[in-house]
Amino acid sequence: MTTYRIAPSILSADFARLGEEVRNVVAAGADIIHFDVMDNHYVPNLTIGPLVCQAIRPHVQVPIDVHLMVKPVDRIIPDFAKAGANIITFHPEGSEHIDRSLQLIRDHGCKAGLVFNPATPLSYLEHVMDKIDMILIMSVNPGFGGQSFIPQALKKIAEARRLIDESGRDIMLEVDGGIKVENIAEAAAAGADTFVAGSAIFGKPDYKAVIDAMRAELAK
Amino acid sequence: MTTYRIAPSILSADFARLGEEVRNVVAAGADIIHFDVMDNHYVPNLTIGPLVCQAIRPHVQVPIDVHLMVKPVDRIIPDFAKAGANIITFHPEGSEHIDRSLQLIRDHGCKAGLVFNPATPLSYLEHVMDKIDMILIMSVNPGFGGQSFIPQALKKIAEARRLIDESGRDIMLEVDGGIKVENIAEAAAAGADTFVAGSAIFGKPDYKAVIDAMRAELAK
Amino acid sequence: MTTYRIAPSILSADFARLGEEVRNVVAAGADIIHFDVMDNHYVPNLTIGPLVCQAIRPHVQVPIDVHLMVKPVDRIIPDFAKAGANIITFHPEGSEHIDRSLQLIRDHGCKAGLVFNPATPLSYLEHVMDKIDMILIMSVNPGFGGQSFIPQALKKIAEARRLIDESGRDIMLEVDGGIKVENIAEAAAAGADTFVAGSAIFGKPDYKAVIDAMRAELAK
Amino acid sequence: MTTYRIAPSILSADFARLGEEVRNVVAAGADIIHFDVMDNHYVPNLTIGPLVCQAIRPHVQVPIDVHLMVKPVDRIIPDFAKAGANIITFHPEGSEHIDRSLQLIRDHGCKAGLVFNPATPLSYLEHVMDKIDMILIMSVNPGFGGQSFIPQALKKIAEARRLIDESGRDIMLEVDGGIKVENIAEAAAAGADTFVAGSAIFGKPDYKAVIDAMRAELAK
Amino acid sequence: MTTYRIAPSILSADFARLGEEVRNVVAAGADIIHFDVMDNHYVPNLTIGPLVCQAIRPHVQVPIDVHLMVKPVDRIIPDFAKAGANIITFHPEGSEHIDRSLQLIRDHGCKAGLVFNPATPLSYLEHVMDKIDMILIMSVNPGFGGQSFIPQALKKIAEARRLIDESGRDIMLEVDGGIKVENIAEAAAAGADTFVAGSAIFGKPDYKAVIDAMRAELAK
Amino acid sequence: MTTYRIAPSILSADFARLGEEVRNVVAAGADIIHFDVMDNHYVPNLTIGPLVCQAIRPHVQVPIDVHLMVKPVDRIIPDFAKAGANIITFHPEGSEHIDRSLQLIRDHGCKAGLVFNPATPLSYLEHVMDKIDMILIMSVNPGFGGQSFIPQALKKIAEARRLIDESGRDIMLEVDGGIKVENIAEAAAAGADTFVAGSAIFGKPDYKAVIDAMRAELAK
Repeated sequence: MTTYRIAPSILSADFARLGEEVRNVVAAGADIIHFDVMDNHYVPNLTIGPLVCQAIRPHVQVPIDVHLMVKPVDRIIPDFAKAGANIITFHPEGSEHIDRSLQLIRDHGCKAGLVFNPATPLSYLEHVMDKIDMILIMSVNPGFGGQSFIPQALKKIAEARRLIDESGRDIMLEVDGGIKVENIAEAAAAGADTFVAGSAIFGKPDYKAVIDAMRAELAK
Repeated sequence: MTTYRIAPSILSADFARLGEEVRNVVAAGADIIHFDVMDNHYVPNLTIGPLVCQAIRPHVQVPIDVHLMVKPVDRIIPDFAKAGANIITFHPEGSEHIDRSLQLIRDHGCKAGLVFNPATPLSYLEHVMDKIDMILIMSVNPGFGGQSFIPQALKKIAEARRLIDESGRDIMLEVDGGIKVENIAEAAAAGADTFVAGSAIFGKPDYKAVIDAMRAELAK
Repeated sequence: MTTYRIAPSILSADFARLGEEVRNVVAAGADIIHFDVMDNHYVPNLTIGPLVCQAIRPHVQVPIDVHLMVKPVDRIIPDFAKAGANIITFHPEGSEHIDRSLQLIRDHGCKAGLVFNPATPLSYLEHVMDKIDMILIMSVNPGFGGQSFIPQALKKIAEARRLIDESGRDIMLEVDGGIKVENIAEAAAAGADTFVAGSAIFGKPDYKAVIDAMRAELAK
Repeated sequence: MTTYRIAPSILSADFARLGEEVRNVVAAGADIIHFDVMDNHYVPNLTIGPLVCQAIRPHVQVPIDVHLMVKPVDRIIPDFAKAGANIITFHPEGSEHIDRSLQLIRDHGCKAGLVFNPATPLSYLEHVMDKIDMILIMSVNPGFGGQSFIPQALKKIAEARRLIDESGRDIMLEVDGGIKVENIAEAAAAGADTFVAGSAIFGKPDYKAVIDAMRAELAK
Repeated sequence: MTTYRIAPSILSADFARLGEEVRNVVAAGADIIHFDVMDNHYVPNLTIGPLVCQAIRPHVQVPIDVHLMVKPVDRIIPDFAKAGANIITFHPEGSEHIDRSLQLIRDHGCKAGLVFNPATPLSYLEHVMDKIDMILIMSVNPGFGGQSFIPQALKKIAEARRLIDESGRDIMLEVDGGIKVENIAEAAAAGADTFVAGSAIFGKPDYKAVIDAMRAELAK
Repeated sequence: MTTYRIAPSILSADFARLGEEVRNVVAAGADIIHFDVMDNHYVPNLTIGPLVCQAIRPHVQVPIDVHLMVKPVDRIIPDFAKAGANIITFHPEGSEHIDRSLQLIRDHGCKAGLVFNPATPLSYLEHVMDKIDMILIMSVNPGFGGQSFIPQALKKIAEARRLIDESGRDIMLEVDGGIKVENIAEAAAAGADTFVAGSAIFGKPDYKAVIDAMRAELAK
């Protein structure tokens, strides 16, 4: 039976009280904290870096899943490992040496993954499946919160699921972008097991109600 | 008589509860919130961006003074203006068109300034003094908190003071890096009127005690 | 029955009288004006930009098809849309976020497409076929006019034709580089329906004679 | 007695009939054709390159003065020399090796110059005055036509004039940005001898009337 | 019957006496000198350039095989051709125009090839097999000598062998990274015919003993 | 009395036997080995890196003076310190944070300096004279050996001498480019005390004769 994980994105949390926000969302049932890092170069926005990761680290026990929307990636990987990240993912377009960057993440004791923009083919996985702990499928173009799910992502989720099953390895399949109660079951049916949700959770008054509704959809 | 301003840098605040931190430090007497933006390109660190500025904006009435350690600068300036910044400064090395970037900041309703790294000459000011509201002299190399004051900065502060006085314009002269109770008077004597302090304030249990001690030094 | 389109490239026109040139070539039977934009970064040449597009716009009613040989692409897309472009294509290597750039073109009311250098695989199309209105296969390396057709392009045209047919969508298949009366039928047989020709048309005294000869080849 | 030169910028001409435009403006009394090259990297616009220069070259006998708003500059310099440029100027920020770029222009048989953005100090001239044939003072930020003259430029023109007089060399002092009949005398009084005018000339129906009026101002 | 080639990498030779080193290793039986060029941009190391290639050229008659770990590649290709290189390979990620770079190498009289990082898919070969003389499979991440062979490379070698056999062309299949006596047979079994070895040869006192042992393994 | 130092540049040595070359030139009287590092980005050439420095280190006792013609500089500084460099100089245009790069060199136990291209003003020294151990004045544009001395460099040497004397600090004043027996006295008269010579020494059969002749000129 599939283990599903809800990963609220703090991109939509109140940045004035992040400690409280992450404690609340974990208390409401979140399995993972999704941490969106943007550098104003790889994407046209700048968000939060290692110091913020370090600040929220003592507030929760669940894994912190750092999504690097930065280019290049190697210099900042050790900073996030030291700041308490558990999972670090990056875009294949963001590194000249993908295999080395994956290994660098693992050498620092974190799980490693690749992120796929809506147009990016999965062929980047071909030679590194043995070094991958997470595949993140973007169902919006990265850079901003609050966008709508791109339906073509479902097909790519299904392809990634097939690659994971063929590999026989234990790899999380995460989806990020426009996920909400209404479409989470569809993403799960396509093969996703980890669901990033930003405004769908942090934009609502009762985090637990949303997460429970998501789990109910997943259990159907 | 000179008006002195204390500008705590939130780089040293607790990022898990920034709203509370800025409220507390303003209650303790801070005149300005200094906001350090790093993009992992102009400096080897990534900190906080417009969304964080927007989140703390409702918590305080004092000006937010955004120090851009990013390159290039033009794309992100409107984002910070919309996020509630009052003052935006950048490094002359960070813009191909310094006059245009200064004008862009002003067109968005903010005060504009230039920041000088320890080795950067003040000659960049020569043709834009009429568009400058703040000069920020770095007394450490930007990128990290907790560094020691570089004494050569005093000479540069004095030079900048002379340029400001000659211009006859109302320009803030800010110093950032290693400022604490023990050396704030020296910086003021050299001509600075606005003092960024990070760990010296946020690293202490009683913010008011530090700020009061700084003011006492300035009043001597 | 296939609709064939002749798209003279103004890269080979007389830049001293472009208005007259485009009027003449349309009078001679051209279906589209192909507009080559080079930025001296993505390719080692710099040609013409939005102001030139705007200047020729009132002279012809046929679509203007802007081929961006620039990197990055997003900033200049709205400029060309405002300047009267009808179709905008770019190289997948020129954008970090291909899906977003395609959407940006469409949001500005233009048709969107991707261009494939001789060595670039068609796999970039895999996840964006639903946002594509034109596929442009380069049969020379971009950067200069007057080069010879690379025969391997025929195989890629055939592959692209198959992808288009499978998609069931109405997508133009354009070929650019070394097209002339002698080889246009071969390119059409491989599956192309839109033919860029520069020196083959503008290098001859009688544009109509060339275009008629091309149509005769296509009608065989 | 100073020789004044009027240098219409074809950035404001009708790009659909450039040959006719440059012939007309020379017939109306222009001394130089000013040719604005933008690459969408050094400035956020892309205009015209060597092929356009080559196309207008046979239409006029006066010097073509190419202003490179591109970065880097060395690769494209020989292209413009071959295309018939007589003077090539670039921004000191656009070359890692200013002395070499100046020498490269001269080795290709052209006159060489440096261009100063509104905020750029003239100190870049200090060690290369012997390799300079033209100094171009920008009185607007480059990138677009139709902007207003920045009055601070007058002071910089005067400084440049002093440097030229001290050098004892024959160096043209050009000003570009917002020049029109109403302020040309002021720029001349500050020391300029070559005047770029775009919309002020090409935006009017009678080029000769404008140029005559400018000369009348200069003769006062 | 396959012709095997041993290609010692001078990255592990004594740079204080390279002429002697290459003479000795050729006397010991080397078929090719492998020359590793790093530029501190594409990889985080800087090694040796065209002047060093030119200096060793008169010392040996065997081909010099230049592996460019640089980005971009086009400007330096003619320098290496003039310096006596026989084969020049580059990474597809290092050129915007792969087909043109391959052609450029051939136009300068050298054999051309592509290099594949551990994570890079072979799909870059799809449209250029007719312009390829060598395929180099990296079995470590480039940048440093002395790393261990990544076993996943064997599968990629086998894939490349299949592509070569299908093409019917005479293409060398080289492997680089962690090759030594103990694993050379395995790489040959997967399909490689040219074997780069650095520390395995130059790190030992008797080059001939190592090369003989490698050949013995290949002959089994 | 001034101590003069002759610093042969190994850029002109035989790269096939560098150990022997540096031993010979030191036996012939050289005081320093000048080591030219080019990265094909800051200058259009690629020469030699840390591994070559490390290889020649055991062959001589004199200081190795590493001239970084690379951009950026910080990542490679520790590599050269570990490889045995004694002095490391870089171009101010090559670092965003000049003060930090100087400090980084000193923190690794080396002497630090700045290099000035022919057009680069000395104003970069203004705020860092206390962290400078060497000033290197380029009397050619860097990138290639065998160029002629640019006479304007004499004026800049004299200016640098004045700055050094005013500082009261012990700073070497080095000149590089076109130095030979015929002009070394002139450079010394202008204020230089350390003389880089490449082809003038390594291009001659008898290194000692050249160095002796240079010393004779300096002693006049």
